[in-house]
Amino acid sequence: MTPSLTPTAERRVRDSFARQGFMKKLGVEMRALDYGWCELAVAFDETLTQQHGFFHAGVTATIADNACGYAAYSVMPEGSTVLTTEFKLNLLAPAKGPVLVSRARVIKPGKTLVIVECDVWNNGEGEETLAAKMLATTLCLMNREDAPGGAAKK
Amino acid sequence: MTPSLTPTAERRVRDSFARQGFMKKLGVEMRALDYGWCELAVAFDETLTQQHGFFHAGVTATIADNACGYAAYSVMPEGSTVLTTEFKLNLLAPAKGPVLVSRARVIKPGKTLVIVECDVWNNGEGEETLAAKMLATTLCLMNREDAPGGAAKK
Amino acid sequence: MTPSLTPTAERRVRDSFARQGFMKKLGVEMRALDYGWCELAVAFDETLTQQHGFFHAGVTATIADNACGYAAYSVMPEGSTVLTTEFKLNLLAPAKGPVLVSRARVIKPGKTLVIVECDVWNNGEGEETLAAKMLATTLCLMNREDAPGGAAKK
Amino acid sequence: MTPSLTPTAERRVRDSFARQGFMKKLGVEMRALDYGWCELAVAFDETLTQQHGFFHAGVTATIADNACGYAAYSVMPEGSTVLTTEFKLNLLAPAKGPVLVSRARVIKPGKTLVIVECDVWNNGEGEETLAAKMLATTLCLMNREDAPGGAAKK
Repeated sequence: MTPSLTPTAERRVRDSFARQGFMKKLGVEMRALDYGWCELAVAFDETLTQQHGFFHAGVTATIADNACGYAAYSVMPEGSTVLTTEFKLNLLAPAKGPVLVSRARVIKPGKTLVIVECDVWNNGEGEETLAAKMLATTLCLMNREDAPGGAAKK
Repeated sequence: MTPSLTPTAERRVRDSFARQGFMKKLGVEMRALDYGWCELAVAFDETLTQQHGFFHAGVTATIADNACGYAAYSVMPEGSTVLTTEFKLNLLAPAKGPVLVSRARVIKPGKTLVIVECDVWNNGEGEETLAAKMLATTLCLMNREDAPGGAAKK
Repeated sequence: MTPSLTPTAERRVRDSFARQGFMKKLGVEMRALDYGWCELAVAFDETLTQQHGFFHAGVTATIADNACGYAAYSVMPEGSTVLTTEFKLNLLAPAKGPVLVSRARVIKPGKTLVIVECDVWNNGEGEETLAAKMLATTLCLMNREDAPGGAAKK
Repeated sequence: MTPSLTPTAERRVRDSFARQGFMKKLGVEMRALDYGWCELAVAFDETLTQQHGFFHAGVTATIADNACGYAAYSVMPEGSTVLTTEFKLNLLAPAKGPVLVSRARVIKPGKTLVIVECDVWNNGEGEETLAAKMLATTLCLMNREDAPGGAAKK
């Protein structure tokens, strides 16, 4: 029923992720990827905190938006690039971690727009609690390189 | 008409900003603060990029959310702490910088909820272009320390 | 595990729904209600359309927001009233009906804020397709009547 | 600087508005239209209320979404149709009216997506108070009729 993620598509998505300097800076890993599905994770660190000592909402937004973008990109065709056009994030509980995990799922694929939802979890020793939820709208741009210079025109 | 930002309130807000590890990691500065108003800025760096070589949407979200939170906090009373409960971000143009600047303005103060809007600009040599727009809902929690341990209960 | 909806709570929610003039005008029914769960439905009518002949996005937003509000109200205590503070709606497919059904589920209860998600479906002869998705933030106000004059102060 | 709204474009937008059954049902008027700008208004009526006796949030959402859609449509080319893909609405104060007025302004035009913001006002005898704010993403579909049958494919 659900198409499989081809090796070509998987490589396209993972290569894109690897080009993101910000992912390296935060230490975000891509833990899982499938057709219309992506899971990212980041481990707690003092440098990722806000004033209460929890993960900053910006970190939560980053791993949620990125998981949404790559879940969407996994259903887009070869020769395309993905852009997030907008997203909304509800912060549901303090983001304590110790690992913050985002799981994004495409809810509506399309030729131009792909809509994705994402849950973000505080993940610890054998237990998880819901930290945040995102609903995102991504855009598929054709015949654009998914690299510097590729998204000049919307 | 608009109240002034008292020295006590200004100190409260700037101290909170200084406690955020993530702001130091990204190199974000608080450029301006007034009653119901906050401006933050971050300079371009390769480590802050996504796959096209622009600022990552997570950086845009971070400085927009934080400006919103501190614009809101500037109108909250002493003895409170601020939490972002949710935000929505539209990405309008590639975030090229060279400096990314967020300007947040309280549009509706309240005893429990303070609503804020924020424009994010690509700021260069004497010119600015609009990169993103945020609409955020923040929560005022009373009798809570704005430090680790302070936001245990919502 | 999940608490039950008491008869008192059920009556509180259904009475509130019955006070809404707009629900009568549109012909919206409350089809199901449980603890943290609410289902509403509206049948297609020419007077509810936009220019393409589908349900207007305003109708979709109305039954989604209302289902969210009442799912939230079902977990709020006696003596409270519910207000929607904000919501975001993604429109995923044309809202053809013939019946438009909204199903809302509380994802995060709280003393002050209750967060709810809602799917809206085109419901026909033994089949359903997803038309829209909402993520909403509702506010619990204590010691306020859930009737005219009850929500004077936020 | 800002282009003018041509008579052809104005007729296209007003004709589309006139095809919306839901606008007639609620008694919404298009008060003003310009290039990238639209103002709608609806007068208070018991049949448009929620349980506190104010305008229902669904009415607020309807006139805000519609103003956004038509502000966007005013900058779209001939032969196109407009669809709202998503919107977010913050409810800032009770929607008392006596007239509820929405004013939408395009903040980012584009070939595919047009982003719009909208303020909704309680409008009375020589005074206005801000009731709600919306940020919306609209989609321009080319070579589609802006009438029944026109939006079959996204």
